[in-house]
Amino acid sequence: MKVLVINGPNLNLLGKREPGVYGTQTLQSINDKLATQAHQLDVEISFYQSNHEGGLIDKLHEAMDTQDGVILNAGAYTHTSIALRDAIAAIKIPVVEVHLSNVHAREEFRHHSCISPVCAGVICGFGANSYSLALQALVSGNQ
Amino acid sequence: MKVLVINGPNLNLLGKREPGVYGTQTLQSINDKLATQAHQLDVEISFYQSNHEGGLIDKLHEAMDTQDGVILNAGAYTHTSIALRDAIAAIKIPVVEVHLSNVHAREEFRHHSCISPVCAGVICGFGANSYSLALQALVSGNQ
Amino acid sequence: MKVLVINGPNLNLLGKREPGVYGTQTLQSINDKLATQAHQLDVEISFYQSNHEGGLIDKLHEAMDTQDGVILNAGAYTHTSIALRDAIAAIKIPVVEVHLSNVHAREEFRHHSCISPVCAGVICGFGANSYSLALQALVSGNQ
Amino acid sequence: MKVLVINGPNLNLLGKREPGVYGTQTLQSINDKLATQAHQLDVEISFYQSNHEGGLIDKLHEAMDTQDGVILNAGAYTHTSIALRDAIAAIKIPVVEVHLSNVHAREEFRHHSCISPVCAGVICGFGANSYSLALQALVSGNQ
Amino acid sequence: MKVLVINGPNLNLLGKREPGVYGTQTLQSINDKLATQAHQLDVEISFYQSNHEGGLIDKLHEAMDTQDGVILNAGAYTHTSIALRDAIAAIKIPVVEVHLSNVHAREEFRHHSCISPVCAGVICGFGANSYSLALQALVSGNQ
Amino acid sequence: MKVLVINGPNLNLLGKREPGVYGTQTLQSINDKLATQAHQLDVEISFYQSNHEGGLIDKLHEAMDTQDGVILNAGAYTHTSIALRDAIAAIKIPVVEVHLSNVHAREEFRHHSCISPVCAGVICGFGANSYSLALQALVSGNQ
Amino acid sequence: MKVLVINGPNLNLLGKREPGVYGTQTLQSINDKLATQAHQLDVEISFYQSNHEGGLIDKLHEAMDTQDGVILNAGAYTHTSIALRDAIAAIKIPVVEVHLSNVHAREEFRHHSCISPVCAGVICGFGANSYSLALQALVSGNQ
Amino acid sequence: MKVLVINGPNLNLLGKREPGVYGTQTLQSINDKLATQAHQLDVEISFYQSNHEGGLIDKLHEAMDTQDGVILNAGAYTHTSIALRDAIAAIKIPVVEVHLSNVHAREEFRHHSCISPVCAGVICGFGANSYSLALQALVSGNQ
Amino acid sequence: MKVLVINGPNLNLLGKREPGVYGTQTLQSINDKLATQAHQLDVEISFYQSNHEGGLIDKLHEAMDTQDGVILNAGAYTHTSIALRDAIAAIKIPVVEVHLSNVHAREEFRHHSCISPVCAGVICGFGANSYSLALQALVSGNQ
Amino acid sequence: MKVLVINGPNLNLLGKREPGVYGTQTLQSINDKLATQAHQLDVEISFYQSNHEGGLIDKLHEAMDTQDGVILNAGAYTHTSIALRDAIAAIKIPVVEVHLSNVHAREEFRHHSCISPVCAGVICGFGANSYSLALQALVSGNQ
Amino acid sequence: MKVLVINGPNLNLLGKREPGVYGTQTLQSINDKLATQAHQLDVEISFYQSNHEGGLIDKLHEAMDTQDGVILNAGAYTHTSIALRDAIAAIKIPVVEVHLSNVHAREEFRHHSCISPVCAGVICGFGANSYSLALQALVSGNQ
Amino acid sequence: MKVLVINGPNLNLLGKREPGVYGTQTLQSINDKLATQAHQLDVEISFYQSNHEGGLIDKLHEAMDTQDGVILNAGAYTHTSIALRDAIAAIKIPVVEVHLSNVHAREEFRHHSCISPVCAGVICGFGANSYSLALQALVSGNQ
Repeated sequence: MKVLVINGPNLNLLGKREPGVYGTQTLQSINDKLATQAHQLDVEISFYQSNHEGGLIDKLHEAMDTQDGVILNAGAYTHTSIALRDAIAAIKIPVVEVHLSNVHAREEFRHHSCISPVCAGVICGFGANSYSLALQALVSGNQ
Repeated sequence: MKVLVINGPNLNLLGKREPGVYGTQTLQSINDKLATQAHQLDVEISFYQSNHEGGLIDKLHEAMDTQDGVILNAGAYTHTSIALRDAIAAIKIPVVEVHLSNVHAREEFRHHSCISPVCAGVICGFGANSYSLALQALVSGNQ
Repeated sequence: MKVLVINGPNLNLLGKREPGVYGTQTLQSINDKLATQAHQLDVEISFYQSNHEGGLIDKLHEAMDTQDGVILNAGAYTHTSIALRDAIAAIKIPVVEVHLSNVHAREEFRHHSCISPVCAGVICGFGANSYSLALQALVSGNQ
Repeated sequence: MKVLVINGPNLNLLGKREPGVYGTQTLQSINDKLATQAHQLDVEISFYQSNHEGGLIDKLHEAMDTQDGVILNAGAYTHTSIALRDAIAAIKIPVVEVHLSNVHAREEFRHHSCISPVCAGVICGFGANSYSLALQALVSGNQ
Repeated sequence: MKVLVINGPNLNLLGKREPGVYGTQTLQSINDKLATQAHQLDVEISFYQSNHEGGLIDKLHEAMDTQDGVILNAGAYTHTSIALRDAIAAIKIPVVEVHLSNVHAREEFRHHSCISPVCAGVICGFGANSYSLALQALVSGNQ
Repeated sequence: MKVLVINGPNLNLLGKREPGVYGTQTLQSINDKLATQAHQLDVEISFYQSNHEGGLIDKLHEAMDTQDGVILNAGAYTHTSIALRDAIAAIKIPVVEVHLSNVHAREEFRHHSCISPVCAGVICGFGANSYSLALQALVSGNQ
Repeated sequence: MKVLVINGPNLNLLGKREPGVYGTQTLQSINDKLATQAHQLDVEISFYQSNHEGGLIDKLHEAMDTQDGVILNAGAYTHTSIALRDAIAAIKIPVVEVHLSNVHAREEFRHHSCISPVCAGVICGFGANSYSLALQALVSGNQ
Repeated sequence: MKVLVINGPNLNLLGKREPGVYGTQTLQSINDKLATQAHQLDVEISFYQSNHEGGLIDKLHEAMDTQDGVILNAGAYTHTSIALRDAIAAIKIPVVEVHLSNVHAREEFRHHSCISPVCAGVICGFGANSYSLALQALVSGNQ
Repeated sequence: MKVLVINGPNLNLLGKREPGVYGTQTLQSINDKLATQAHQLDVEISFYQSNHEGGLIDKLHEAMDTQDGVILNAGAYTHTSIALRDAIAAIKIPVVEVHLSNVHAREEFRHHSCISPVCAGVICGFGANSYSLALQALVSGNQ
Repeated sequence: MKVLVINGPNLNLLGKREPGVYGTQTLQSINDKLATQAHQLDVEISFYQSNHEGGLIDKLHEAMDTQDGVILNAGAYTHTSIALRDAIAAIKIPVVEVHLSNVHAREEFRHHSCISPVCAGVICGFGANSYSLALQALVSGNQ
Repeated sequence: MKVLVINGPNLNLLGKREPGVYGTQTLQSINDKLATQAHQLDVEISFYQSNHEGGLIDKLHEAMDTQDGVILNAGAYTHTSIALRDAIAAIKIPVVEVHLSNVHAREEFRHHSCISPVCAGVICGFGANSYSLALQALVSGNQ
Repeated sequence: MKVLVINGPNLNLLGKREPGVYGTQTLQSINDKLATQAHQLDVEISFYQSNHEGGLIDKLHEAMDTQDGVILNAGAYTHTSIALRDAIAAIKIPVVEVHLSNVHAREEFRHHSCISPVCAGVICGFGANSYSLALQALVSGNQ
């Protein structure tokens, strides 16, 4: 099984950026832990981060024929990008939407997600653990 | 560790009710699988279902001093009950909100959750697996 | 043919409560007339009233396997209860929504019904006669 | 007792038009059945159909002094015509609003009725039977 | 100077219709009084009433080349007809919008006028006197 | 008969202020013409202008026992002042709302009037002539 | 004089629940103080608390014939329950709405009360003192 | 192939009406050009214009069995007529919605079309050329 | 203890103004009763009324250093004045918002208060008694 | 004459992506057909596709001095990009907005276009033919 | 060059009022610094503060013929006063809107400004420095 | 002190693009003037422009550790980009939002800024001078 983890805008700053909201782990350390977990689950995992909406779309297209599932933290594009939604709907593999923080406990404009309706499921609020649960969800769905 | 699983209105009909949306498993079979998983994780698990908003609130209050976490599928009360929200905010143990279906892919009125802002996190769209992931989330949070 | 008549919150006060809006008949006298009409139509009829949203849901579930149709005046829960809507959608027998008063001629918040979209049909504004027409509708639909 | 049945825009196409929504009966066959029922109830019945908002208003005015009640399926004008509402409020005889389909189970813009607040009552969702119930409602109200 | 007085839907019922709101004068008596006033002001006046939106539009088009001004009580079409608005904007002669009742003291849906922005001015709330003031306004504007 | 003409904020700048919208007459010249017209109609007329919401309210209170009617151009307070509305409702004499420009042909926020529902009537769009028509309306209402 | 004090959902947790918002007194200690005050005012007082909307409605109905007034803190049902509103409107005795906290200084969804329009009056923001003032209000109204 | 061109309210005034918005061609000259183009494409074309909503509906019904496609400029009824929408949905032949002006560059209330969702396609903003493109679209769709 | 009672626009007309809504007592008689009650409670009380928003603000500023609490009936400014809100937030002494009528039982636009969020508490619906309860609330809060 | 065809996000997946909505032709085959048509019309045509909002803007800027017109299918950016709108308004050559599907027959959020008001015209719902009609429109506009 | 600095409601309390939001400088000290800066720029500067909306309007009118520019901090009237907007539009000299705090980082109701559209420009969020920048802006604009 | 000036979409067209709105200066000439001013203030200044949302975010991240402040004209992304907002909130250096035109005097959709709440301050409406004032603001804040 092959899984791609995609992180959107500003997530490259994890650990540096508002640690009260997003925790003190860097994206690298989250990815490292996920890689270990993936190895144990016999999942081939890869990672991508971009601050460009178009970059995320390009990568999702690419995953269409090469991956079995995607874990997507689209950051702020979650709330504004219909283009991302269309990309997820267009590729046939399952995409799990994740968020580090509980977006529903934050500003009003973070409560709406453009992409949830076309994702397989949504996991939010468990910090780095959100990615880990998403990986388990993809593996379970595959069995 | 002790975890209580609370299911709200109409979830007693699982398996009978709109299987296209909610799947064909009964609540009993979901609970049985969860019990097995809990046993493996060394978690003491118990179950409660009610169609009464007040019943769910009473049970949450009771869990306050007896449980370490709650997995809550509040069914339709998710979208209408501020009283449930207040109950969750009042008790100090973590409550994980779960849904079988991807509520964001359904009617507009199911997109808003009164309780998300006061829950520890939200997991939706993975069928019976949503409960299983929630249990893992509670256990991870405890370690 | 078996039909259950369910009345929701405050309808037990009929005759006492705002007679200008709801008329002077008691719920008992409405039920008695309906029983007579049912007898003539060879319908086995029964009655239930509760001020508890959960009670109404429990009763609807129970009707699922024992009744051929339900006449439901959900009172104020008409306007607020998605849980009731889900219960109606879950059981497979036809449910006819009735109201004594013309709810559309009253306050704005009484114009929206959570349950209409999943009911077989709606009858409102004919006083006690609304129940009688609903019974005829269920009988006609059965022929 | 004299009753006029008024059908609004596009109802002349009944049977031809979207049978999945409106059924396969023609307006003529519905009227014929109503005429038979009226005869049994000793009601003098007449029929009018027009696609013109103004035509419906003219006819309602005419009914003012010649009829004891009106059964009105205003079709799409239900949702847009304040002029029709004013006509109903202006004439003193009872007008029963009917719809073949359950309008509340359809598009959002069909949920609002301009005329309900000034009608005697509303019946919707019972197909051709909606007219029949309306006739019974008018007759009952007269006794 | 030539002035046309156009009355829209339900205004033919004046005197009969809800006298509490619209007064007890008939349209004929209002027109007669206006005719007298017009005569004194040396204005050639004519009258038209229709319940048909299209009829009002046809008449406005006709007035384009034959009249110096129009007094228009569009009745309920005031609140819903963009077609009427376009007709008024299309013809070049001044149109004065009048209402018998103070529409702003009535239901919310009567507060919005589709046609006010393209009329020369608006006069409402003075009963039959509204027409008389509109005639004076047109005459003054012409001097 | 005694009539008070009240002008609200910025109307003291008439003639100076945006002549494209409000014309080139000063408030003084409008008042002078009104005084002449009042004299002809045997009306005792007086004038008041203030940029202070409280000043307009004080003056309306004062008019309560000393005037037979008020002509009120409340300027921008028309759109924001509930206090002014309450003052008009509190005094028992008729108040006619006037505007020089057709407020409905201007910005959206000028379409709503807080005071229209409690005024006797509304006249707008006829320039200085709006006041003149209002005076005639008050005199006619008195006969 | 007989007064019933009704407390709604989660108020049984007072003292335990978010003391920053609701203070540190338990419901029992508030009731004890009220009982003392009632005794001084020669009022026969009784108390009821429930987390069930239906339970609150049942109790209000019961009060109809046995009490002279009700002090009601409906908790979160304040913001969502039309059924409670209907119950208050149905019974004829005065009901005073109270809140411990100033609900208007909290989340947006706590600003709207379904029940205020049918209550005799509203008192909020004075902590346990809100109940005490409500008792005085009922006694004053009775004199 | 047979195509009917239907023009709605005020389009009979083309050339006379607001030439800045709608151009200086008359409807006759547009129709003449279309007739020439139709002739070249071997299409039998006919034309209809009415200011009556009901007239447009009647004509659409008539086209149902006699035409292969309709080009419809519904004028202002585009924005308000659900009845027209239902007529288009009811007849089975393709209807192409056209507008002379770019309605999206005009007032807010012209941005919403009631009929677009049931039309085959929409063409707007190309002046008289919009009709010509619509004819080509119908012909292409037929090949 | 020193308390200032501030009354806003139109409250000087109490007794004269819409007695059906506001009762028949004059402001003077309410103040006299309050003065008596204050004397009994050993409170030094003073009174201020103005129809000027700025006047109310000036007075609140003045109270900042001279009073221990304020009872404020801001009349219609309650619903529109953010400036008043800022004044209350700026001075540090407690301000109790009062209303004679139950504002929630009146027009929609009276349901929103700009000042509630920054007041110590709100009391409405008890007529002149609202002031009396507010005085008791301030005294209790001081002990 | 030189025309540039710009396709936005996800349109590179045409043929692969949701063929039920977008058809089975690839973007390449659509472009090939357009190239043939352009050749016949003596138009020099070129093509560009990007999933990057910024890329589309850069290309539009570039077209400013090198092209005579643009055919733009902005995909999902149609509904969210004010930056794209500004780019179209900034360059002076005509831009025709096209869509393969009838966007008005799809989800609510696809009904609003940020760019329509600044485009020369809009064509939607004719599949690949939409581009062809747009090309004809540009050519006609040039003659 | 002559510049008038106008401060609106509650700004007289600067230094005393919520220093966390508005800083600890008094209005006098801000004005003194501005006076020094004006002197260096060869600008004749004067100051006005009032809590009265009408007072601010009167002062703006007065500035019309005596000043070359105005720096206006309208305080809370910024968000509610259309009358102030009209005053600014009426006088011809440039008015720069300033705020001490970043109003967009505060409550929702402070995000809308009634006056921005008619001001020359807006500066907010720089504390006392906002006034200083505004003065520079006016001087630059004059050169 | 080091300051970076970032310009967003379409600002590279300055001078060419709608000079009526944005003036006739090119971005280069604005930057040159700013460079001169910076030199005088002993500020090390650099410039960046991109039409790519992701490019602006990347650049803001880069500035985090290398600059003391940022002047940001985000163009149309101001109104739509939450990702940009998050980037500004994530980096710790002050960002001043600037606009050439007075955005509040333009279309409704330009009145809302996603980024204002996290910027140090906002300056708009002064043309190229907006940048100059922003530079002074950053320098002043640093002293």
